Amino acid sequence: MGRVVAVDLGGTNLRAAVVSEEGSLAERRHVGSDAAGGPEAVIQAIADLVNEVASAAGIPADAAVGVAAPGPLNPETGVVHYTPNLEGWHDVPLGPRLASLTGRPVYLGNDGNCAVLGETWFGSAKGASDVVYLALGTGVGAGIISGGRLVTGKSGLGAELGHVVVALDGPRCTCGNIGCLEAFVGGWAITREAGLVARTGDGDAIRQHANGESLTPTVVARAADAGDPAARAILARAGRALGAAIGGFINTFNPELMVIGGGVATLGESLLVATRETIPMYSFPAPRATARLVSSALGADTGLLGAAALALANGDV
Amino acid sequence: MGRVVAVDLGGTNLRAAVVSEEGSLAERRHVGSDAAGGPEAVIQAIADLVNEVASAAGIPADAAVGVAAPGPLNPETGVVHYTPNLEGWHDVPLGPRLASLTGRPVYLGNDGNCAVLGETWFGSAKGASDVVYLALGTGVGAGIISGGRLVTGKSGLGAELGHVVVALDGPRCTCGNIGCLEAFVGGWAITREAGLVARTGDGDAIRQHANGESLTPTVVARAADAGDPAARAILARAGRALGAAIGGFINTFNPELMVIGGGVATLGESLLVATRETIPMYSFPAPRATARLVSSALGADTGLLGAAALALANGDV
Repeated sequence: MGRVVAVDLGGTNLRAAVVSEEGSLAERRHVGSDAAGGPEAVIQAIADLVNEVASAAGIPADAAVGVAAPGPLNPETGVVHYTPNLEGWHDVPLGPRLASLTGRPVYLGNDGNCAVLGETWFGSAKGASDVVYLALGTGVGAGIISGGRLVTGKSGLGAELGHVVVALDGPRCTCGNIGCLEAFVGGWAITREAGLVARTGDGDAIRQHANGESLTPTVVARAADAGDPAARAILARAGRALGAAIGGFINTFNPELMVIGGGVATLGESLLVATRETIPMYSFPAPRATARLVSSALGADTGLLGAAALALANGDV
Repeated sequence: MGRVVAVDLGGTNLRAAVVSEEGSLAERRHVGSDAAGGPEAVIQAIADLVNEVASAAGIPADAAVGVAAPGPLNPETGVVHYTPNLEGWHDVPLGPRLASLTGRPVYLGNDGNCAVLGETWFGSAKGASDVVYLALGTGVGAGIISGGRLVTGKSGLGAELGHVVVALDGPRCTCGNIGCLEAFVGGWAITREAGLVARTGDGDAIRQHANGESLTPTVVARAADAGDPAARAILARAGRALGAAIGGFINTFNPELMVIGGGVATLGESLLVATRETIPMYSFPAPRATARLVSSALGADTGLLGAAALALANGDV
């Protein structure tokens, strides 16, 4: 099958490249994804980018296009229901429009589903049949492969592992629900905790590390690495919720691999030490013994490589 | 394909029957499952029962056998790792031994996985591709079908939805983990709560309804139906945990149907009213809108019909 065109539609950047079966990227391009304004302009910008990189790489006119897009979408119909980061996107038929503008088969998947596909085709989970992927960023994205197939649900809205309860009476999540994993370990949640602590005497070190700039998870991690108990407690609380959730995922999916990606995963050890200590209290020994916790291998190219994997599989995932 | 032999290996009874593609049962037999003592004797008893019902129904010598068994097992190898209710079962090669004793293809599945198959072949979820099944009994069993396939995990140990965290700092479960769904809604958990309340002045009504007999979930339900606030609070607490867990399952599996079976589900409305009120606080509106909560249609025949579905599918599920 050879090569496909991959598109990563982020909230800030629209990226495209030609990707080979071996996962090598060529003809990378990117433009601002919100500059044009409105879904139709963004779709036209994607089509232009797709045609440009395909023509530059000289790939066949019928080579497929894979698109990783944020927000809930239906992979069957190619409709994006909405995206949190792009203006005016409500039930946009991105897949069909792009197919019509490029004359190519187009496969659309959400970020998390594309990411877990990318990890199994090219990354840390190469060849694995049972994988749970978590992207720990400002929000918590996820993707699940069970028995070699994506778990997406009846209309493609599943695999929202950032929004499963870990604490019946936990904090309210930005999604409106209560006690979600994301309300503990999402970057926004860590920042919120830090902001509350920073108003008090316990927050001296956190304020110093912020040095007049905004509080971020990275600031909290720096304070924790320097030994600040308050910062460590914030990350330990997040890590404990993550460990409990992962324990539940182990009992649910009996995975070979739990792949952790996203910026929050790179915050240093305060968070993941608590996660590793917590998992055994929330999972059975047998499936836990065979579930390895690994880091994403794809980094900033996760979106492009995931979109490429989706196209290489012809959407049959 | 026509007819198969179905075996339901319970902790108390070993049942067998011949089941048609339409789900009609013939030649039902049952014997005590623990009477003989030891795995080899039980396997011989199963083989005798299989041969007896197959011969009585006159089905072909190569018709398949489906077995629903309790406890963690590997459907690929046919090995039962252990069962909570049968003496001395540790890594018993039930599938291969039974195939050798009967000369028939044998397919082995755990109770929950068989049950969800039975519901999709013959019951409340007939024809559905995305189903979550919960059996609310003394313990909480479960089975998941996603995209038309069972979710079992790498070595068949998955789908243990009774043992996913709903409360990070919740009660200890009999499985050893913390805050599992089962630690709230399992029959043993409801009985434990009732026992603690019954020692106090708040437990007068519960004690009266027990009338000198052991406390059971049914006693609690009778007291709740009679308006006792303490009994109602016990069931409401269980129902709220169940609703939070179901919310998480909706966000994870985007199912068409959530099928609820088992004795605790028939306890009356105090529990399920709380469940229905709680689900919206723990799930997204879009997948919730299309996920129907229904009761099991198979009742006491769940095990036999599930085992039959497994055999009819030739284990390809």
